[in-house]
Amino acid sequence: MKISERGEFGLIRSIRMLLERPEEGLVCGAGDDAAVFRGGRGELFAYTADALVEGVHFDLRYTSWHSLGYKALAVNLSDLASMGGGGLSYALVVLGLRGDEETAWIEEMYRGMLECGRRYSCRLAGGDVVRSPGETFLSISLVGVLPEGRFLSRGAALPGQVILVTGTLGDSYLGMRWLKQGGDADNHCARRHLYPHPRLREGRAAVRGGAAAAIDISDGLLRDLGHICEESGVGAEIRMADIPVSEEARRVAHGLGLDPMEAALHGGEDYELLLTAPPELAHRLAGALPAKPIGRIREEPGVSVLDLEGAEVAITRTGYEHFGGE
Amino acid sequence: MKISERGEFGLIRSIRMLLERPEEGLVCGAGDDAAVFRGGRGELFAYTADALVEGVHFDLRYTSWHSLGYKALAVNLSDLASMGGGGLSYALVVLGLRGDEETAWIEEMYRGMLECGRRYSCRLAGGDVVRSPGETFLSISLVGVLPEGRFLSRGAALPGQVILVTGTLGDSYLGMRWLKQGGDADNHCARRHLYPHPRLREGRAAVRGGAAAAIDISDGLLRDLGHICEESGVGAEIRMADIPVSEEARRVAHGLGLDPMEAALHGGEDYELLLTAPPELAHRLAGALPAKPIGRIREEPGVSVLDLEGAEVAITRTGYEHFGGE
Repeated sequence: MKISERGEFGLIRSIRMLLERPEEGLVCGAGDDAAVFRGGRGELFAYTADALVEGVHFDLRYTSWHSLGYKALAVNLSDLASMGGGGLSYALVVLGLRGDEETAWIEEMYRGMLECGRRYSCRLAGGDVVRSPGETFLSISLVGVLPEGRFLSRGAALPGQVILVTGTLGDSYLGMRWLKQGGDADNHCARRHLYPHPRLREGRAAVRGGAAAAIDISDGLLRDLGHICEESGVGAEIRMADIPVSEEARRVAHGLGLDPMEAALHGGEDYELLLTAPPELAHRLAGALPAKPIGRIREEPGVSVLDLEGAEVAITRTGYEHFGGE
Repeated sequence: MKISERGEFGLIRSIRMLLERPEEGLVCGAGDDAAVFRGGRGELFAYTADALVEGVHFDLRYTSWHSLGYKALAVNLSDLASMGGGGLSYALVVLGLRGDEETAWIEEMYRGMLECGRRYSCRLAGGDVVRSPGETFLSISLVGVLPEGRFLSRGAALPGQVILVTGTLGDSYLGMRWLKQGGDADNHCARRHLYPHPRLREGRAAVRGGAAAAIDISDGLLRDLGHICEESGVGAEIRMADIPVSEEARRVAHGLGLDPMEAALHGGEDYELLLTAPPELAHRLAGALPAKPIGRIREEPGVSVLDLEGAEVAITRTGYEHFGGE
């Protein structure tokens, strides 16, 4: 069966079945935001990689090379954040170039990466440059210390736990729509789309504060909550009224004729942390991060969205899939 | 200036000038076969990444998906070997797929990677799958313990040191030519091209035995020796008669009407280790690895090839460059 028929998640399932179980230093393998391995002296490291392909993941018509570099590193740091990282990290950058790019563009992209790295204690350690006649691509990997010696995972949610989320949701999606309509890059939502803020401090505080499961919101709230539920073998319900939406998002949505709540539920790339925690720890955690309680984990599978009366809202749209299929 | 005018090495120089100097845990940054960082508990790790693009780095007409996976991991392990690695390592695999690939092909590629990983104590820790409409690509990163707590680098060669090389040279290039002419994949040279042997044991033994500089031969002997000379600010001379060429390489070269010595000097992808060592240690090192002394490091810049009488042989061909330029 072709990949395009099978779909991205089908392929990933096949690959995961081939890979061996964690052992010999590998504490957490494929299926989380990052792998976790243990060094010879007992130290834990998170290890993650992502690639961005021109025309698929970025569009140079409304993304500067600077923001492309910044964001490419930031989304990897976000994976580290969702594992509870927050110490020093190291990145390698593999560039696939057609050859007709200007050297100045690539330098600008590196400046963006360096700015992000300086802000979040990540050192650019090198990489590779290869020729890619079809499209420009950028593949970044990142290894970072897990300073608490523990980590958060998608599979640790238990029924009864509170679901929390940092920051506000939907801004990035609305920023992307704003930019596509020719809006300026200084808009709050546009900046959140172009220069996301990896929640490293919050991720580390979540480990210390006793959080259980975590994921960074890259595919959209419902989709990423679905990933936690699937890996944990649980379900979830969230209260629509508690989902945090910024004033700026409301304003941009209004201007574009879009529903800000739909952006918050489905829009990806906010890179906020979605966490679960036992009820007795959730209140303190919410204050410490800060984060907002938006629902609870339940035994019954599936993700439900509840309105003010506690009635389930019908949700039709699904998240984003790269190859189609499923 | 466009990348294609500037050339790969020109671009890499620009990028290196932007990157900061090693500090804060980063012991060795861009410019070597791998970066080296120090974990919070003092342990040293080598960290490297490479990408392979269809039509540029591999050709599925004479490369099976199995060997593609095996080789992609092996060449990263070879970078680890040239830093003196040889402990446990972890790899992340980023796949860029057009979508029209068969799932069975990708599984076969993973089987190749897993076979290589099992053979050389490397665990596949996960990765990412993205859509790449232009070409299939494969980007692997690898982090591995440097068990001796020291490492070899390209920049550590000093005048008077002996140059050593493991194994034999030219086999991989001749194997590639053999395969392109429709030769079978069971041929010794073809196997060396498709299933290279990363010299991890030898790399670690080289650190223990007091070797100074090292590189793995991916671009060809002369080109890679040139990299050592450039990074060390030295020159080198090698004796043509001492360059190790296998019987099988001579036979394949004869059959194809090619010069085996030219393949040994210029042909890339042998993934043997090229080392330098102080003269007083070189003999023991040569026996321990084993490796063959083929020349010496000198102050005068440039790389010279000497014939049996010690006269310099004119060398015209240069190595391989991805974008043209320079």
